Amino acid sequence: MIGRLNHVAIAVPDLQAATAQYRDTLGASVSQPQALPEHGVTVVFVELGNTKVELLEALGENSPIASFLEKNPAGGMHHICYEVDDILAARERLKAGGARVLGDGEPKTGAHGKPVLFLHPKDFCGTLVELEQV
Amino acid sequence: MIGRLNHVAIAVPDLQAATAQYRDTLGASVSQPQALPEHGVTVVFVELGNTKVELLEALGENSPIASFLEKNPAGGMHHICYEVDDILAARERLKAGGARVLGDGEPKTGAHGKPVLFLHPKDFCGTLVELEQV
Repeated sequence: MIGRLNHVAIAVPDLQAATAQYRDTLGASVSQPQALPEHGVTVVFVELGNTKVELLEALGENSPIASFLEKNPAGGMHHICYEVDDILAARERLKAGGARVLGDGEPKTGAHGKPVLFLHPKDFCGTLVELEQV
Repeated sequence: MIGRLNHVAIAVPDLQAATAQYRDTLGASVSQPQALPEHGVTVVFVELGNTKVELLEALGENSPIASFLEKNPAGGMHHICYEVDDILAARERLKAGGARVLGDGEPKTGAHGKPVLFLHPKDFCGTLVELEQV
């Protein structure tokens, strides 16, 4: 069912500093920051050839990464995103397997403009999993 | 400097259960478990097409993931591994940039039989970074 690893999201307290670490110290190719107010984050994409890392900084009052950053003030890996061909078929298989889909269970439009779902970390080794239909 | 994302390592308390979640619930292609006593882990590889996830279970007395699992009993993302062409050149660039290399600073032979270094999480957004020479 799951296909490629679409991205690993790293929540960071200071996007400018994190971008400099990836660009200057690790020598990676990084994008300009993009504010996504409807998703409560500002993102910088780190291009890795086969996939990407997304550096996320909280944006606005109700950022979905705010509580994570309270618990992890230095930042950390926030979620991992796997691609699927058919997100509704994926959801049915997951529910049949006993996995919990977060929120109301309906796919939302993710940060890349595609349908996404998030799965409960307790069902996947303590890791928040995003599924994105590609 | 950094190239492809080689793998994301997820530490898990129960490798058999984690493998079943990835194989049966997420429908991924998973390997047989491989005990790596010299690295203190048993690993299952999850093949994702463009990269892989490594599910790690502690093995033996001094597993390098034991303290992580004490703090995160449900498991979680433990480190991210980026590929480099020349690990000694990478190390010099990192040190020049003020980043801390863990241990004695000399590359060790990693779980794939290739030279690896680990970088201090505090220098990279709270994320433990492994560099592997490929």
